Amino acid sequence: MPTVDRWLLPDGIDEVLPREAVRIEAARRQLLDLFSRWGYDLVITPHIEYLESLLTGAGHDLDLQTFKMTDQMSGRMLGLRADITPQVARIDAHTLGAEGPSRLCYCGSVLHTLPRPLSTSRSLIQLGAELYGDASSASDVEVISLMLETLGVCQVEGVHLDIGHVGIYRGLVQAANLDEATERALFDALQRKAADEVAQLVGDLPQASLGAMLCSLVELSGGVEVLDRAHVLLDGAPESVMAALDDLAEVAQVLARRYPGVPLYFDLGELRGYHYHTGVVFAAFVPGVGQSVAQGGRYDDIGRDFGRARPATGFSTDLRFLVQRGQIVDAEVPAGIWAPHSAEVGLQDAVAQLRAQGERVIVALPGQGDSDAAQHGCGRRLVFAAGSWQVVELNS
Amino acid sequence: MPTVDRWLLPDGIDEVLPREAVRIEAARRQLLDLFSRWGYDLVITPHIEYLESLLTGAGHDLDLQTFKMTDQMSGRMLGLRADITPQVARIDAHTLGAEGPSRLCYCGSVLHTLPRPLSTSRSLIQLGAELYGDASSASDVEVISLMLETLGVCQVEGVHLDIGHVGIYRGLVQAANLDEATERALFDALQRKAADEVAQLVGDLPQASLGAMLCSLVELSGGVEVLDRAHVLLDGAPESVMAALDDLAEVAQVLARRYPGVPLYFDLGELRGYHYHTGVVFAAFVPGVGQSVAQGGRYDDIGRDFGRARPATGFSTDLRFLVQRGQIVDAEVPAGIWAPHSAEVGLQDAVAQLRAQGERVIVALPGQGDSDAAQHGCGRRLVFAAGSWQVVELNS
Repeated sequence: MPTVDRWLLPDGIDEVLPREAVRIEAARRQLLDLFSRWGYDLVITPHIEYLESLLTGAGHDLDLQTFKMTDQMSGRMLGLRADITPQVARIDAHTLGAEGPSRLCYCGSVLHTLPRPLSTSRSLIQLGAELYGDASSASDVEVISLMLETLGVCQVEGVHLDIGHVGIYRGLVQAANLDEATERALFDALQRKAADEVAQLVGDLPQASLGAMLCSLVELSGGVEVLDRAHVLLDGAPESVMAALDDLAEVAQVLARRYPGVPLYFDLGELRGYHYHTGVVFAAFVPGVGQSVAQGGRYDDIGRDFGRARPATGFSTDLRFLVQRGQIVDAEVPAGIWAPHSAEVGLQDAVAQLRAQGERVIVALPGQGDSDAAQHGCGRRLVFAAGSWQVVELNS
Repeated sequence: MPTVDRWLLPDGIDEVLPREAVRIEAARRQLLDLFSRWGYDLVITPHIEYLESLLTGAGHDLDLQTFKMTDQMSGRMLGLRADITPQVARIDAHTLGAEGPSRLCYCGSVLHTLPRPLSTSRSLIQLGAELYGDASSASDVEVISLMLETLGVCQVEGVHLDIGHVGIYRGLVQAANLDEATERALFDALQRKAADEVAQLVGDLPQASLGAMLCSLVELSGGVEVLDRAHVLLDGAPESVMAALDDLAEVAQVLARRYPGVPLYFDLGELRGYHYHTGVVFAAFVPGVGQSVAQGGRYDDIGRDFGRARPATGFSTDLRFLVQRGQIVDAEVPAGIWAPHSAEVGLQDAVAQLRAQGERVIVALPGQGDSDAAQHGCGRRLVFAAGSWQVVELNS
């Protein structure tokens, strides 16, 4: 193939150059430190696994997003991780096996076979935190709070929070006892907020009130008043639906008090990740960006396939996207110090000493002089004066 | 498949749990900071690329080590990176295109289809640094020095350095003008230090002196005296061979002066990475470990395939292996602080303040009491006393 092609990267697969890489590294450190201060322990999950493990508890979407290859050692099919959450759930359920609640976090690349909707990228740096072992709304509040703090650290401006609860739709659908095809069509229509289609699909239900409730989900989105309207419109719904509504109200109340500056937007028909989510679901948005900048929810059942069902809730984000959207402050790097090319032992010692103090010192290579210092980002230089090596301004 | 299988990881593919992950993260930060102080800029290369790009300039070995899959977007073959060095060379040659010397570093996972010799692992965290644009031995010295400093940061004990120069063998073989099959057999025999086979393969050379020199490479390994013996045994060798010998001597001399505590071991028949190396090659070993703990060398030609030939030298290591072999000090984490479960605003403020000060604060979930604090690694707790929230010892 011609030379010109060798440096072409596949669509949606990026490399990160120094200026951006240093900001991503700074954000990574600040966020992992934040997670640690909240009690979340870091784990590093494998990039490839047996496909069955990677797709356990996950939906068909993840299957389609996952690159596959054959393992030469076992002859079995391997997948390249497209989501780290199920891997961390496996570590909690199987490997760590803690009795009480446990908190884990992670940061690493994931790859997708095709870009997700509204995105062009197929490579993300997924960063997230998961809280296992507690089914109360306190866990949801903690995880959403940590997500908002994460966005705060990256100085992402204008965040608003979408919040819903898949238990509302699930409870209504179970009570309606729909056949599989109708349920799938209903799910699809609701996702698109296609009110007419929803009405048609539930028109024949023996219990007309259930049909009306399912129809109302299309409309039940907006500010906190949605919760009051829901209590009216869903009056008489199955107990699990009312419990889900109470759950949602409780989480929203605490969040509104803790983060009065973050607008809350309720959407009771929101079914993001419905296939594995089981409770409160949430996503953070910023103006002018169609996709969420961070998202998560409760997924109590995922551990079951690894041998231990545990309540679970968590969030994740794309670190690179956060850094691009946010205003994370570059780690303050003082201008480097330029050292001449010389075998003099005193110079080597001076360079070593400056580096030990945290200074960036670039040593000239043969043929390089002080005029090369600036292009290497140096604003000072090492000179021998008055019997010792000293740091002076570049132009002095 | 049965539940019990879902958490099984493929052979040689590992997950890293919190206790080890925190040490790897600490080492990663210390080493990237070290590289930055030496003037090396971080880049983040893609995990997958078109196969032709990944394998450019690399040998057949890397091809066999690389997992392959089809790109659904282009229909072309993709590879999962098995080595980051060629990717960084592409960034230097094509993307950055700096005129003078440039220094780049990286840290990320690589995967291999099969474990390398003497290893059981197929997943490494490759960490390394590369110096482009300077052909002098000063670059080799800088890169080897940085490798030794890297091992020092990780407190890897008992390091000795193997050093060679592929230009010696290459110069002799070119002069001998062997046919391809014989050259391959000779290369193979020399790698195994099979003196008899080497003697047989070069026995028919018209220039007997060249044959003798090639034979002598098997013996030319040991301490610094090897260089003197080489000057005798290779007397009359092609100019490029003598230049390589001088090059090696110069690098060794500076290293011996700078790192008097690191034993130097010369091996003029060492052909590690011969297919892409072009000059000084080196590897660090520790007692009791068959494989090198860090390694590198000069590879001046790799950029050519990306449109720009640049002198290049660098080293790489496996961060996880370094952390396991070394004694890197755990980041000092003071025992966490346990906070009760409560919606009290004053408590939330106290927790936020402590976290802002860098403290790790774990907030109890419903049903958890002070007796749960220890299992979450907390040695202190927040209590309300004398009108304010205060941190006290766990048992007070």
